[in-house]
Amino acid sequence: MIHGEARGQVRKIYLAGPDVFLPDAVAIGRRKKELCDQYGFEGLFPFDNEIDPNQVRERLDRAIYRANVKMLRGADIGICNLTPFRGPSADVGTVFELGMLVGLGKQVFGYTNIAADLLDRTKLVDKLTFDPSRQAWCDSNNMTVENFGNADNLMIDDSLIEHTGRPIVRHNARPDDLFHDLAGFEACLRLAAAAEPKSR
Amino acid sequence: MIHGEARGQVRKIYLAGPDVFLPDAVAIGRRKKELCDQYGFEGLFPFDNEIDPNQVRERLDRAIYRANVKMLRGADIGICNLTPFRGPSADVGTVFELGMLVGLGKQVFGYTNIAADLLDRTKLVDKLTFDPSRQAWCDSNNMTVENFGNADNLMIDDSLIEHTGRPIVRHNARPDDLFHDLAGFEACLRLAAAAEPKSR
Repeated sequence: MIHGEARGQVRKIYLAGPDVFLPDAVAIGRRKKELCDQYGFEGLFPFDNEIDPNQVRERLDRAIYRANVKMLRGADIGICNLTPFRGPSADVGTVFELGMLVGLGKQVFGYTNIAADLLDRTKLVDKLTFDPSRQAWCDSNNMTVENFGNADNLMIDDSLIEHTGRPIVRHNARPDDLFHDLAGFEACLRLAAAAEPKSR
Repeated sequence: MIHGEARGQVRKIYLAGPDVFLPDAVAIGRRKKELCDQYGFEGLFPFDNEIDPNQVRERLDRAIYRANVKMLRGADIGICNLTPFRGPSADVGTVFELGMLVGLGKQVFGYTNIAADLLDRTKLVDKLTFDPSRQAWCDSNNMTVENFGNADNLMIDDSLIEHTGRPIVRHNARPDDLFHDLAGFEACLRLAAAAEPKSR
């Protein structure tokens, strides 16, 4: 509780990630919120699983979008689970939220539970060939694969470095624990606790 | 040129998409800019292919990030190519930019050259099972697949509808023309031309 209390106000962290799609999403959300609390923050977990379809007049997806955007706007910080999801890159819902947090000028941190570079991740799921004319590896659609040593697309990795000074926290979770291992998440909490609050 | 001239200023459109990874990226960018011009806009194509690594002092990926973000901030509108890319969902670099445009309060439009719903797209690349307890289709990681009839993750589809009133333009391109077919892009230009400019 030290950090929030020392400044007289508890900073809020939006907890972005594909965690919402897990069978135990609510429990994972609760665990992440407890960890936020231990580091002096308040955790905000997306609404995907907490809106009763019978209680909303608009479409359920619209209601979830609106609730999540309201939460994003109210947050001071975002911690994004950028673990590869259905392909070599992070979950697009999470990446949308990362972009929005950056656009809104919030502090952002991110972690991945697969440590490999984007190039190596892509090699695992597609047959790549090297194009000498472009000096680049290309996928089966003849589209270049970024090779900057980043974990994911440069817009993701560089947004974290530019806006908060911290790269994606890379950690290799056990394959059967890929979406439950919270070591990288906790490392982000330590980075957030050590960072100066952003002026509003 | 009618729309821009009628209002005395030409609105700028950021051209987001995985097009930058194509072998003919520069030509595609030029073609998109010409189409923008025909509809009275100025097109801004990302800098991925136009920065000379020998002319920048920071890392090349950082220089591209900074140039793209500067362009995003200077744009009035974004048109995003949300065609599935290395999986069932859109390119994460594009989705980051969509999120940032929304966070910055810009008008956003999007198109996909694969018209299918997210659920059907995911069925093509993974074995799904129906979980009666969650009343949802789940992927091989036992994570639910959204089934709202959207083309992609709800944060993507609903951001377009919420902020501009237009869903993703869905079009089925020929498989060998997936990343070159500009019918959906031109449909977005027509939507942008018909939309009221956002107050700044």
